[in-house]
Amino acid sequence: MTEDVRVTAENSSSRLSRRGFLAVAGAGGALAATGAVAVAARANNASAEASPAEQAYPFYGAHQAGITTPAQDHLHFAAFDLTTDSRARLISLLQAWTIAAAQMTQGQEAGQAGAFGGAYDAPPDDTGEAAGLPPSGLTITIGFGSSLFTTADGQDRFGLASQRPGALVDIPHFPADDLDPARSGGDLCVQACAHDPQVAVHAIRNLSRIAFGTAAIRWSQLGFGRTSSTSASQQTPRNMFGFKDGTANVKAEDTDVDSQVWVDPAEGPAWMTGGSYLVARRIQMTIETWDRTSLREQEAIIGRDKRAGAPLSGGTEFDEPDFNAKGRGNEPLVAETSHVRLAHPSSHQGVKMLRRGYNFTDGNDSLGRLDAGLFFLAYQQDPRTSFIPVQTALARSDALNEYIKHVGSALFAVPPGAADNRDFIGAALFDLGTAQ
Amino acid sequence: MTEDVRVTAENSSSRLSRRGFLAVAGAGGALAATGAVAVAARANNASAEASPAEQAYPFYGAHQAGITTPAQDHLHFAAFDLTTDSRARLISLLQAWTIAAAQMTQGQEAGQAGAFGGAYDAPPDDTGEAAGLPPSGLTITIGFGSSLFTTADGQDRFGLASQRPGALVDIPHFPADDLDPARSGGDLCVQACAHDPQVAVHAIRNLSRIAFGTAAIRWSQLGFGRTSSTSASQQTPRNMFGFKDGTANVKAEDTDVDSQVWVDPAEGPAWMTGGSYLVARRIQMTIETWDRTSLREQEAIIGRDKRAGAPLSGGTEFDEPDFNAKGRGNEPLVAETSHVRLAHPSSHQGVKMLRRGYNFTDGNDSLGRLDAGLFFLAYQQDPRTSFIPVQTALARSDALNEYIKHVGSALFAVPPGAADNRDFIGAALFDLGTAQ
Repeated sequence: MTEDVRVTAENSSSRLSRRGFLAVAGAGGALAATGAVAVAARANNASAEASPAEQAYPFYGAHQAGITTPAQDHLHFAAFDLTTDSRARLISLLQAWTIAAAQMTQGQEAGQAGAFGGAYDAPPDDTGEAAGLPPSGLTITIGFGSSLFTTADGQDRFGLASQRPGALVDIPHFPADDLDPARSGGDLCVQACAHDPQVAVHAIRNLSRIAFGTAAIRWSQLGFGRTSSTSASQQTPRNMFGFKDGTANVKAEDTDVDSQVWVDPAEGPAWMTGGSYLVARRIQMTIETWDRTSLREQEAIIGRDKRAGAPLSGGTEFDEPDFNAKGRGNEPLVAETSHVRLAHPSSHQGVKMLRRGYNFTDGNDSLGRLDAGLFFLAYQQDPRTSFIPVQTALARSDALNEYIKHVGSALFAVPPGAADNRDFIGAALFDLGTAQ
Repeated sequence: MTEDVRVTAENSSSRLSRRGFLAVAGAGGALAATGAVAVAARANNASAEASPAEQAYPFYGAHQAGITTPAQDHLHFAAFDLTTDSRARLISLLQAWTIAAAQMTQGQEAGQAGAFGGAYDAPPDDTGEAAGLPPSGLTITIGFGSSLFTTADGQDRFGLASQRPGALVDIPHFPADDLDPARSGGDLCVQACAHDPQVAVHAIRNLSRIAFGTAAIRWSQLGFGRTSSTSASQQTPRNMFGFKDGTANVKAEDTDVDSQVWVDPAEGPAWMTGGSYLVARRIQMTIETWDRTSLREQEAIIGRDKRAGAPLSGGTEFDEPDFNAKGRGNEPLVAETSHVRLAHPSSHQGVKMLRRGYNFTDGNDSLGRLDAGLFFLAYQQDPRTSFIPVQTALARSDALNEYIKHVGSALFAVPPGAADNRDFIGAALFDLGTAQ
């Protein structure tokens, strides 16, 4: 719902079958295998011939996968609340999640014994519904909510209050926000993206199972939709308003990632170097009302032509809007209250976000209206200078507000990637380095 | 959740792009185009090289598509209640749905002008979110609930009471049923299946939009999962319990379709010749409890090996279970209360259903448990001799009952297909033949 940057094809993918991985692993243990995977992945990337189902993205690296990775077709996102006050158990959870996530993203099952091995009189290590399915481009991305550091009543639950990043603010209340606490916030988050929803759901389910007794799902969201355009031959996807969404996103060659997405090391904290901040907003669309609006009004509200996605100032989809162009009665061709104008980087000192949102449809209400909309996900260097000012402008004036409602909101600090299988996501937060 | 028949590859598919269709349509109008599509589809079927996205199944024919059509990856199912008492408006709705469904299944937009044409000061004919997407194997299947014929208080709303089929019974209450009226019943249903969820959602949304003022969605369900095994090289898909589901289903060569799926013309009513009966059940799985059960117990409950799907009496996945085989202590290898035994055709005079179910995950409850399970869809000749006796046996004794809960239920009479674009789904019910 904003005009910003979506970066693709930075993470490399590999044509690596589960069998191939296991063969590699057999040659030299888990750590060697991990390195081999990463190397193989990068070497293979040049050919870029892996089918979506065959794609396996490296889990270990400087950044977590699932941020600049080309957006997959399906999402299962879950926010968790910790049900423990034990710092040690929190650390153990992150270690266990790291190991399971590393395995599942390579098409393996969670746990040592998997879905069918181990003791016959014990529950299997893996729930099994993804057994036999290929990696399907699965990425698993883990983040930390502000309540992990400081609770609403100021309590320092895990001795982490001093580590809370300045950028991990409490998002202000915007006009017309209609937030449901049961769809907002969360101590931890996991974003699972894959080309097969069964693979994404399996990942969240097994991480939730691993968390049993330590953390429980607070809210979750499934999403679908071709929300990324990862090659020039692919069309820009459409949102539930029928408009192309993400036209202004930059592709693989983008040079803004360091300045717009990854945390500035000079800004700190040190444990967030290589990380990013994720804003998640559940934006409900009143599609039945929108569908009764004229094509003229729809285009005026968005500021773009519906068919081609071109700005109303003229040109084609990928031309920059000309906000100074005037039409009949000296009115601007791209209206002052249009979504494209209010959200455009040029209206916000060039600020861009890396968007990874998904369309959703979750049943219907008692009047038969579909519960549909956009699950907005955006990664950014600092929400204080990107999402918050952009949303402030949108919430105040966007003509689209008549047709949308923000019902869920969360902000997460997404730490850097784990270096290898002796590391874990968030280790630096606990001053543990790669120990354990 | 039952052992029955799933038929695949009976409907032919074509490698027909939207452009190809339009070229054909341009040559001789809509009707000629429709015929050409069907012919082209069948001619191309031999090569069977269409990618899932490119598949376009013929809409017109003796049977509705979406029954014996190889199951697609994604489902959006909606039950509608009529908000009118006008028989004429009901007929108009079915005519409009038929036309829109015929178009959308061929990758076209709903309505004459589509998403971008028509009057600029009027709402577009199509909501647009599937514009530019290929047909994606979309099928749209329409059915009639018993309340269309006779309301609970015996009212004949549309003068159709005398046409109510004997097989369109009120499904009895089964032990442990925990049905939510808001997830059960409905005057009409639409099953939209596609390889892309955005295409399936678009279909339901546009049919709902067409129904505005005449009918409104009562409940709806999205589903996913590789629930069909359409070729010998494809693995049998797994349900959310991690078990292979549908092993006993028969593939394309099945000879039981006439006796098990399509209505017996001798049985009547005449307007249902070429039709079938669809049972829909929302079966919630308490996956967290299941996941804490030992592998041994899971397999005993199902009656199959989890990894391979072989019956516990031995052999491989596709071997018939030997219910007489005994093991230690002279106990049957396939337990008396196992799901496979209770649901097996041999326990029910050979009765089989054609299953088209999907896995679902719809968020979570307040305890953090995922709302996940199986949306059971089964087509049959007569539910009085298939679903009802099978479910009676399962509800009474199935060891699986500890882990599942039926929360939604509906039965629909699914009429035959429309012959061509002068016909409409359900026309014979109104004694209108192919007239208007």
